[in-house]
Amino acid sequence: MERADQDLAFMLQYENVAWYENGRVRILDRRCYPRRVEFVECAHYQDVAKAVTDMVTQSAGPYTAAAMGMALAAYECREKSVDAQRAYLRAAADCIANARPTTVQRMRQVCDTALKAAEAAFASGENVAEAIKANAIKANNARYNKIGVMASYLVDMFPDKGAVMTQCFGETIVGQMLKVARARGKQLRIFCPETRPYFQGARLTATVCHDMGFDVTVITDNMPAFVMEREHIDVFTSAADVICMDGHVVNKVGTFQIAIVAKYMGIPYYVTGAPDMGHPDIHSVNIEMRDPAFVLEAMGVKTACDGVKGYYPAFDVTPPALVSGVVTDNGIYCPYDLKRYAQTGNKGEYELVV
Amino acid sequence: MERADQDLAFMLQYENVAWYENGRVRILDRRCYPRRVEFVECAHYQDVAKAVTDMVTQSAGPYTAAAMGMALAAYECREKSVDAQRAYLRAAADCIANARPTTVQRMRQVCDTALKAAEAAFASGENVAEAIKANAIKANNARYNKIGVMASYLVDMFPDKGAVMTQCFGETIVGQMLKVARARGKQLRIFCPETRPYFQGARLTATVCHDMGFDVTVITDNMPAFVMEREHIDVFTSAADVICMDGHVVNKVGTFQIAIVAKYMGIPYYVTGAPDMGHPDIHSVNIEMRDPAFVLEAMGVKTACDGVKGYYPAFDVTPPALVSGVVTDNGIYCPYDLKRYAQTGNKGEYELVV
Repeated sequence: MERADQDLAFMLQYENVAWYENGRVRILDRRCYPRRVEFVECAHYQDVAKAVTDMVTQSAGPYTAAAMGMALAAYECREKSVDAQRAYLRAAADCIANARPTTVQRMRQVCDTALKAAEAAFASGENVAEAIKANAIKANNARYNKIGVMASYLVDMFPDKGAVMTQCFGETIVGQMLKVARARGKQLRIFCPETRPYFQGARLTATVCHDMGFDVTVITDNMPAFVMEREHIDVFTSAADVICMDGHVVNKVGTFQIAIVAKYMGIPYYVTGAPDMGHPDIHSVNIEMRDPAFVLEAMGVKTACDGVKGYYPAFDVTPPALVSGVVTDNGIYCPYDLKRYAQTGNKGEYELVV
Repeated sequence: MERADQDLAFMLQYENVAWYENGRVRILDRRCYPRRVEFVECAHYQDVAKAVTDMVTQSAGPYTAAAMGMALAAYECREKSVDAQRAYLRAAADCIANARPTTVQRMRQVCDTALKAAEAAFASGENVAEAIKANAIKANNARYNKIGVMASYLVDMFPDKGAVMTQCFGETIVGQMLKVARARGKQLRIFCPETRPYFQGARLTATVCHDMGFDVTVITDNMPAFVMEREHIDVFTSAADVICMDGHVVNKVGTFQIAIVAKYMGIPYYVTGAPDMGHPDIHSVNIEMRDPAFVLEAMGVKTACDGVKGYYPAFDVTPPALVSGVVTDNGIYCPYDLKRYAQTGNKGEYELVV
């Protein structure tokens, strides 16, 4: 381990996740974290889109990267006419929003917010790039606050000295959940499936749990059933890339089968996140299929022989019947009744904040 | 890949799995196969036990290794008195049978067979080591024939152009299953979960499927639910390390959760192997917990940061309610009615053949 002395809680400040400054966006490379602390430097908005496509950052990282990428686009076109800048920014928004197929809608929301911030700057004569960046920080702070509220509802569901199983790495919610649990003096044992093929559970979730002083155990992705039974898991929880209004949850592949196993064991599954108004049902979601060669290796070492095929869905779909509750910033909802979240005036995690 | 030109079907002949000759036992090192073809050489029976403990060979490999290890023990003590040889061989049997805690009973059966072959050799004046080896080959051939019969019952359960999901690597049955399917001209798509932490599914099962000309796809261990649904898996099948008389199945960790998912999907799960008369129920089985550090790495590269714990049960337990049928050499049994297998005079896979 060549890990630097920064802890992950620090590394997940958005200054590290993705940051625009001096005509560059710098993104923490989570593909090798915590073994190495490296950053990908982007000089063009297309590089930011490519970094998202290539999984340099994941979970909520791409949304911060998208906003900072829009600031970079504004910097790139700063010498053009206002109309040309508008066209350039719209092209950038299209490019960045489509970096990964499953999250186009949320990415689009973030880019639209940046376009609105740009319009405000055009009107006031401010520096457009700096205005987009300032707005991104404001949006992130608003979102962090919302997720802090979600975390408090989630931690209510954990018994003291309880055992919690996670899945993959839900950036903001994992940190906020642990902060709330620590503030309440709640002791937890946390079990993290490693989350192949990128090992986000082993590398990221387990690291932040350890850094924040919790008892954390990594298991391989074939162990959840054994561990739920033998280690008396109390709660299974995950974040989501999309929560459809019909209660279907799209999250890192593996979530679906852990939810099936949890149901079999009688263990509740709580998903955190705001329902996506843009996804009335699961049919509006496109599950991203990534390069199959990547499942034929592990940590850069090939596992299978030549001629064997791979298969790599990035996400899977958990139906509402397997979801015990959707933990939002407005309380915990029944997965079949998410329209009530919208009806009470909530606008979701990536609400416009210009 | 530095793989030699021998195919896996060849490499799994018992001459390679484990072989006694000239005072040495040579065991194919499956921990690095197929990337490298290497053998562990054992000069003492204790080395054979240690090789089994260290996972140099798995599935049915340890039983062949045990018999060959007993031949080696006989060679080691050949200059002693007959009584001293008996004592030496009993000590060897105790050592080898206990190499891994979950399979003590079957290993003991193999070692007892070797002790009987030794007694016959003492009486006839034959070379004891050679007599044990000859008997091991005879026992293996008898077992291979039985497993060929099991395979024919198993393949009956596969629709033509069907999709089959495996788990880990069931040495003999995988090869026999594919031979039968090929002989019948049955086309299959085979999906192999990679089977962390040792990747036996990716390295061994997928290789033998590919070598035998089948369409084979490796998936990570968090993908079975997605793949069962999207790729329309028809059958889930695995071998077993122990099949208790009460229908509980002990097999590589992960089997339990795939069986839960199969049940949820309405997909049958067939386990191959003879019920173990020595295990009346699951309470007689001791699940081996291996070095937890091993789940914190992949293909030799560390994944988690220091201070994070690991957890490594080698096997899990699938209850009979999740088992559609136990495929034996005498037909397919209901998991709740395995006593009938014994009542009809069958003696199991590792029946004495002296």
